[in-house]
Amino acid sequence: MLDLFEPIQKELEHVENAAINNLVSDAALVTSIGSYIAKNGGKRLRPALVLLTSRAFGYTGEKSINLACAVEFIHIATLLHDDVIDGADMRRGSPSANCRWGNEASILVGDYLFSKSFSIMVNEHDNRIMASLANASMKMAEGEVQQLMSKYDINLSNESYIDIVTKKTAELIASCCEVGAIIGGASEEQIKAMHSYGKNIGIAFQLIDDTLDFIADRKKLGKPICNDMREGKITMPLLHVLEAEKNGARGKIEDILRKHELDQDEVGFIMGLVSKHDSIEHTIATAGKYAAMGRENLKSLPDSPEKNALSNLSQFIVNRDN
Amino acid sequence: MLDLFEPIQKELEHVENAAINNLVSDAALVTSIGSYIAKNGGKRLRPALVLLTSRAFGYTGEKSINLACAVEFIHIATLLHDDVIDGADMRRGSPSANCRWGNEASILVGDYLFSKSFSIMVNEHDNRIMASLANASMKMAEGEVQQLMSKYDINLSNESYIDIVTKKTAELIASCCEVGAIIGGASEEQIKAMHSYGKNIGIAFQLIDDTLDFIADRKKLGKPICNDMREGKITMPLLHVLEAEKNGARGKIEDILRKHELDQDEVGFIMGLVSKHDSIEHTIATAGKYAAMGRENLKSLPDSPEKNALSNLSQFIVNRDN
Repeated sequence: MLDLFEPIQKELEHVENAAINNLVSDAALVTSIGSYIAKNGGKRLRPALVLLTSRAFGYTGEKSINLACAVEFIHIATLLHDDVIDGADMRRGSPSANCRWGNEASILVGDYLFSKSFSIMVNEHDNRIMASLANASMKMAEGEVQQLMSKYDINLSNESYIDIVTKKTAELIASCCEVGAIIGGASEEQIKAMHSYGKNIGIAFQLIDDTLDFIADRKKLGKPICNDMREGKITMPLLHVLEAEKNGARGKIEDILRKHELDQDEVGFIMGLVSKHDSIEHTIATAGKYAAMGRENLKSLPDSPEKNALSNLSQFIVNRDN
Repeated sequence: MLDLFEPIQKELEHVENAAINNLVSDAALVTSIGSYIAKNGGKRLRPALVLLTSRAFGYTGEKSINLACAVEFIHIATLLHDDVIDGADMRRGSPSANCRWGNEASILVGDYLFSKSFSIMVNEHDNRIMASLANASMKMAEGEVQQLMSKYDINLSNESYIDIVTKKTAELIASCCEVGAIIGGASEEQIKAMHSYGKNIGIAFQLIDDTLDFIADRKKLGKPICNDMREGKITMPLLHVLEAEKNGARGKIEDILRKHELDQDEVGFIMGLVSKHDSIEHTIATAGKYAAMGRENLKSLPDSPEKNALSNLSQFIVNRDN
């Protein structure tokens, strides 16, 4: 992914510096945990999208740096809380923050980062941007709650699942692109198109995440395989198996999931069905469709290295293996 | 406290209705937990302060209703997270939300309420108000982190303790009063005075909370006695004992606290010292001083039933028994 961010390499460094400055606090743990998760949190996808979209519309000022930092803070706040909720001990190959500093600290530093991101946004004095990010944050929490409520629910529909994915992952990514377009002075139509682009690649991103849980090895993804299934999270590959097996092993899968604790044989049994029905391929193909819709949304953009990066990014998201 | 809120009884009902409307969500748990904690969360102190201060400066419009709802959402979000962090099973005589719905749901619904409150604020289009509340939220989380870091630390200074109390409790209360004054069109000087009033009564409020943990019975407060001490939280009564016993039982108290699990005898031993040194009385007297400073801050306000209520409130906060 880093190659794709080449047009905004310098700006991403400015975002890193802004993040470090914004993590200075009287509470040393805020600085330690904030920096740790900022470093281990991942790919800088969200700040990169703010930067790429704003630059795609010709913007080169400071506003995008600060807002890119704000969206990264929202993202790492949710990572901190998600890891507590999932009881995760690893994040991208390193011990999770909750594992290192405890759940209490992770919850509180997450809250701090939420508030800090709000504070950074307020300093930019742009109500429309704040409205977009506030709405995305709300949707994210709502999606996470809906996911929690649908744990172990094998009757979850594909439609409801896409709704959850949209809220918990795609809305913030969509808002990043929308915010970039607003900063860049894009037209109403272009702002909407960028929001749609973000939503589409966001859904694709989450669907690929779902497949990686089934196929990636622990080292690369930094988390154990089939974690979602073990936690009772029904994702697209499993939904596809359940549909394909509705007159077959569906009852047995139901029994396995209901136990809330899967042994290696049971994981193997379900993995066999995932393989038999090409459910990973089905999910990747679905992600590919969303990514293609995302590329369609880029049509109204003027040609630029950033537009190319956004287009390539939609492909990269589908092809990535971590 | 309810009597004191008589001048704003109707407005408080509007806030309740606004809260109910703002808790409508696709995720049923958001509505259930949000309503539950809003009902069991307590005294409506923070929304009442927004309403009383705005009315004290002659404001009677809708803005104060919505912002009162936003501050209550911030407050109940922190209650949800605090109860997870403290592993609390009760809140004001009822099972805590985390006890009823689980930690995961409490964390996520807390996040939802934070975002929702931000969203409500954004709709009011007032950057100064947002800046005040964003800063208060940040300070709150920072104070909670500092409290976490100073658990079991018998070398905590009185000054550091007041700093923690100011951040974790008084800053939001100060912001509520500041926001009310801004809505009411108060002068700069009056806005500052109202912020100081809120900070002073906020500190008093927390110090009394600290004493109630030592003296209130479980039924009234809805939580077990000496919970703070059992959790390793060093509050003012204990700080007072530690100072008084610096050439006496300090070493023994240190040993007891370090164990991280206190038996009934040990609680009794410390309670004996609290009683011997009048540490509750000392803490109440300190709270009284802050409350008196709060009343001083009201001098620049024009006379009104709301000003009287704010003055009486500062006294009530010190005299309350739950």
